[in-house]
Amino acid sequence: MNRIPVGVLGATGMVGQRFIQLLSGHPWFEITAVAASERSTGQRYADACHWLLPTPMPERVAELVVEPVAPGLDCRVVFSSLPSNVAAEVEAQFAKAGYAVCSNASAHRMDDDVPLLIPEVNANHVALLRVQQAQRGWKGSIATSANCSSTQLALALKPLYDAFGIRALHVTTLQAVSGAGYPGVASLDILGNVVPYIRGEEEKMEREPLKMLGTLRGERIEEAPFTISAQCNRVPVRDGHTECVSIAFEQRPDLDALRDALASFRGPPEVADLPSTPPHPIHVHSAPDRPQPILDREVGRGYTVSVGRIRPCSLLDVKFVVLGHNTLRGAAGGAIHNAELLAARGWLA
Amino acid sequence: MNRIPVGVLGATGMVGQRFIQLLSGHPWFEITAVAASERSTGQRYADACHWLLPTPMPERVAELVVEPVAPGLDCRVVFSSLPSNVAAEVEAQFAKAGYAVCSNASAHRMDDDVPLLIPEVNANHVALLRVQQAQRGWKGSIATSANCSSTQLALALKPLYDAFGIRALHVTTLQAVSGAGYPGVASLDILGNVVPYIRGEEEKMEREPLKMLGTLRGERIEEAPFTISAQCNRVPVRDGHTECVSIAFEQRPDLDALRDALASFRGPPEVADLPSTPPHPIHVHSAPDRPQPILDREVGRGYTVSVGRIRPCSLLDVKFVVLGHNTLRGAAGGAIHNAELLAARGWLA
Amino acid sequence: MNRIPVGVLGATGMVGQRFIQLLSGHPWFEITAVAASERSTGQRYADACHWLLPTPMPERVAELVVEPVAPGLDCRVVFSSLPSNVAAEVEAQFAKAGYAVCSNASAHRMDDDVPLLIPEVNANHVALLRVQQAQRGWKGSIATSANCSSTQLALALKPLYDAFGIRALHVTTLQAVSGAGYPGVASLDILGNVVPYIRGEEEKMEREPLKMLGTLRGERIEEAPFTISAQCNRVPVRDGHTECVSIAFEQRPDLDALRDALASFRGPPEVADLPSTPPHPIHVHSAPDRPQPILDREVGRGYTVSVGRIRPCSLLDVKFVVLGHNTLRGAAGGAIHNAELLAARGWLA
Amino acid sequence: MNRIPVGVLGATGMVGQRFIQLLSGHPWFEITAVAASERSTGQRYADACHWLLPTPMPERVAELVVEPVAPGLDCRVVFSSLPSNVAAEVEAQFAKAGYAVCSNASAHRMDDDVPLLIPEVNANHVALLRVQQAQRGWKGSIATSANCSSTQLALALKPLYDAFGIRALHVTTLQAVSGAGYPGVASLDILGNVVPYIRGEEEKMEREPLKMLGTLRGERIEEAPFTISAQCNRVPVRDGHTECVSIAFEQRPDLDALRDALASFRGPPEVADLPSTPPHPIHVHSAPDRPQPILDREVGRGYTVSVGRIRPCSLLDVKFVVLGHNTLRGAAGGAIHNAELLAARGWLA
Repeated sequence: MNRIPVGVLGATGMVGQRFIQLLSGHPWFEITAVAASERSTGQRYADACHWLLPTPMPERVAELVVEPVAPGLDCRVVFSSLPSNVAAEVEAQFAKAGYAVCSNASAHRMDDDVPLLIPEVNANHVALLRVQQAQRGWKGSIATSANCSSTQLALALKPLYDAFGIRALHVTTLQAVSGAGYPGVASLDILGNVVPYIRGEEEKMEREPLKMLGTLRGERIEEAPFTISAQCNRVPVRDGHTECVSIAFEQRPDLDALRDALASFRGPPEVADLPSTPPHPIHVHSAPDRPQPILDREVGRGYTVSVGRIRPCSLLDVKFVVLGHNTLRGAAGGAIHNAELLAARGWLA
Repeated sequence: MNRIPVGVLGATGMVGQRFIQLLSGHPWFEITAVAASERSTGQRYADACHWLLPTPMPERVAELVVEPVAPGLDCRVVFSSLPSNVAAEVEAQFAKAGYAVCSNASAHRMDDDVPLLIPEVNANHVALLRVQQAQRGWKGSIATSANCSSTQLALALKPLYDAFGIRALHVTTLQAVSGAGYPGVASLDILGNVVPYIRGEEEKMEREPLKMLGTLRGERIEEAPFTISAQCNRVPVRDGHTECVSIAFEQRPDLDALRDALASFRGPPEVADLPSTPPHPIHVHSAPDRPQPILDREVGRGYTVSVGRIRPCSLLDVKFVVLGHNTLRGAAGGAIHNAELLAARGWLA
Repeated sequence: MNRIPVGVLGATGMVGQRFIQLLSGHPWFEITAVAASERSTGQRYADACHWLLPTPMPERVAELVVEPVAPGLDCRVVFSSLPSNVAAEVEAQFAKAGYAVCSNASAHRMDDDVPLLIPEVNANHVALLRVQQAQRGWKGSIATSANCSSTQLALALKPLYDAFGIRALHVTTLQAVSGAGYPGVASLDILGNVVPYIRGEEEKMEREPLKMLGTLRGERIEEAPFTISAQCNRVPVRDGHTECVSIAFEQRPDLDALRDALASFRGPPEVADLPSTPPHPIHVHSAPDRPQPILDREVGRGYTVSVGRIRPCSLLDVKFVVLGHNTLRGAAGGAIHNAELLAARGWLA
Repeated sequence: MNRIPVGVLGATGMVGQRFIQLLSGHPWFEITAVAASERSTGQRYADACHWLLPTPMPERVAELVVEPVAPGLDCRVVFSSLPSNVAAEVEAQFAKAGYAVCSNASAHRMDDDVPLLIPEVNANHVALLRVQQAQRGWKGSIATSANCSSTQLALALKPLYDAFGIRALHVTTLQAVSGAGYPGVASLDILGNVVPYIRGEEEKMEREPLKMLGTLRGERIEEAPFTISAQCNRVPVRDGHTECVSIAFEQRPDLDALRDALASFRGPPEVADLPSTPPHPIHVHSAPDRPQPILDREVGRGYTVSVGRIRPCSLLDVKFVVLGHNTLRGAAGGAIHNAELLAARGWLA
């Protein structure tokens, strides 16, 4: 089988490196182009990139020459982890030029005609791409994945929202430094410390899950109608976001029913056979001190979200802890998973 | 002026060391006895103790011989940071024998006739000691300070509870490893990790602040009548607990009024001149990314609690972040502060 | 093919867990027994063990019942990571009873008739087992692997010692906390800190590599005749020891010859096909800031040692940095590798 | 007494902040000017500076307006922690214009006519400033302090060099992240990791101590004639450099004599009364696991260097561990100490 040629925009960054790591050996996709900012263009990828992952840089990619971030790349799909201010314009140029953009940047996430996808959660939102093409006159398209902290939360909420309804939700995060990219968080700010603030993060967490859990009505998404309050913290952890969640449900479930809803969740059948779909999107822990970033972030190759410490909340109904890998499921992995969904639906033909 | 002779129970532990550090050079108190478990008794303190503080072990204390944890110590006050299971019995023996016990152990905190004190918050609860002596037939007494995470929360809540009333509260903590004592948390459990569980901590946080904010009615404390929901996490920070708080008020204040209430809080006049009382019990931050453990835990020599990121909560009314030094204000310092209050009230005469 | 039944002594400890992780799915060995101290015996392994690895506990092992650490286990080989004071006696009992003991404990490492093995370095020292059986009247045997910090050093030295001779060596280590087992290093001792002392470590590093690089003469090993001076430090790293080495050679090589000797090293042919032998025992880095624990410890599934920063030394001849995975190549993995060597030589038939 | 007006060049950086912290309340000096790069000029210092120290920004300095880094500042002394490439030119301009420059930048350290000072080590090298003024036609002068890692080493070596002579020295460092300034080391590079490389650091360590321990002969310094070999590593420690040292002496001392030489060292009498001179420049530890950054870096307000683990070296003569505070004694504090020496010698009149 011929693999689909893909490019990576922002290829030298932290998420860009994860794209390259995950796409190396991918059964459906093949990296044929890497693009980055002016500082890197014209260099071999191996020379331009300060590689930060514990697996070696794929040899084929190491030899690619870094190209400018503009249409003209030899590929069908572009994965974008561009800074948001750059992404707004550039992703639109690629979509106009006919590329299928699968973006992890925030620029277009909340546009009415842009789907914000997690395959197991809202595969049917892909239909929005037709609306997008019609409205914008684009030959290509933009599909987005959410902020890392929003993604793992939405995935954990999906079966609960469907089964019991959600009235309100409070979440406090303990987020890893890789979420800020490289060089990102200075060591003097975070070694032995907590920074109780991440610019723009709380706003995203209070909004994006509602779009992902929303309902496609004709040409638009009707957002899920509950309130989220988020408090976001940076902690000295390399990878893996921990989220302490309290929920008030429409119909308060007993804890066993809630556990069952999480553990038995699978997503729609069309998603089951995508290469990145893990056997269990959600792993439920019974040990009282789990999940933990170091022990649990790699479950399902980083695509499984872990939930533990399920217990009653004296204020809302139920509390629990959600853990996900922020640069795998929560960033590069999520965007690749979305591209797989597009491919399976014939969108990349 | 002759200083009051005091002893430290559990003197070799983490909190015990803080007692000794803070009492060295104290204007009112003088350490005349150190006691610890059998393993240490009979040794010089310098030999028995694995000193973990960045200031040198006080020379006079270094030469004291460690005594058994039992009445017979040559002092008027004993400070206790004993493990809870030991403290229950031993502290009662000391109180019976006439000592004024100022304890940071949890054993007696919630006893009806034992005050759970923070001088700025509930100095008048000292009156409960008379009830205690009458009921138990003790010549001495037990006064307690709360769990570290409860203490800093109660202090930050006091002016808000008085001014605006509180209906409900949600708190998620990011707690330092020193709170678990020594050896305490294993490095393999916490380096680059988060442990979303601390045994017994959430139960204490949901209960203790209500007693501290409670009202003395005759011979008992009527607890503050609101609900607290707590989620407690351990993070790789040495000292300083961070707490993300959301509050629903009886009368929702505007944010400026709330800031003013916090910043202008001083505690009752009788407390102002205690040696450990900081100029401002609460410091209010305006920078968006404060307070932080490394930068703010030492404010007011570790007796000031910092509050920052005051902003509206989309679910309850207001959110903010509280930071305190868990072994200074939150443990040894708090118990010493309580002893100062007892001394000022003539209780140690 | 029937796999050889093996047992793990000290199965609940940090190295014990690595044994179980690595042996799960091993092509030649199958875990049929787990043994640990009295505290654990009689329990399911899953209940007795505080699992600390990021891969899940193998399901088959989880169900095994923990047995006492004494002969009677149903297996042919026992892997030991017992504390040294226990290992001395117990390992001898197992050897006497006919088991092939592959030990990572230090108790017998320096015994004259016990080989201290690294397959690529001194596979021929296996012959010492015959001497051992003859002298001690044992049906079984004890083969040992060295201290983690000694192992990676000896492996990096082997091709240099053979090609150029070594006159003297200075090494300073920066060692990971997993080397101390669990609970091991307290977080209060190591978070944001360095501890410039590891009990007994320098003595081992100054002695063990000389035995491993030694020559088998008749019935004994003649140690390599050079001097090692070691300084050992603990640093806040989870896995992976970094060693800064300076060497004076018999025949000073130019740096390219030295690099070639390291990079082309393979060990003897009989070792090439052992399941754990990595393609390259030594990986040579050219980037100026490598090797680093986080980026390089997993190379060759943790069996490859990395060497970088090769440069002249103004005092001796050459300086470089060695990095190895202390619980894979340096502990459990090393002992398994040794067992594979024994199997290949027919010793386990 | 009127205090001497001083300015800080590079005032917003990590070392600049330490200058301001240490100069606040200094008995001889008063900050009257702060200067920094264009990005900051014209702003209040409080607005221009991302303050990273646990003590509050001094209120008077907070209100100063940041000025350009060029002569015209209203002060007598300028303290410089400028980047080396900027410092080369700018410091000369200040010296030409009549300022006494006390620099921690590396630009002029090794100039023949520029003293590289540690008051306790080589106060007499101040005489070089006359040579400098004569040769360069400057009204002012440049005096420098060494690299942090060199400074603490030279201080520890001074009494040993004087008493026993030194033939050769090997040092491996474990250096804190604050040495790289802010933002400096990215958290992704150092959390749970070691980086075995610091650009330019080994070259400085192999050279600077020889100049500081050198002898003033007429108009120049004759460097100490021994060889240093250095290996430098970055570790996840906030403040405090640890150095593992091995020394070959001209006359090998017994260990007690060596300990005595270190512990009794005081520097020349003229230095004893400088405000920053600590009671003991060197503190000798007897505990086997000291010094440690967290426990020992603050000794003598960060001006005392700690030495421990004194023991024989099997390769050279003696090994020990040196610890110093890299931004106090090792940077800002060192330069202030030098300015005190200049003032005491009447150089600032």
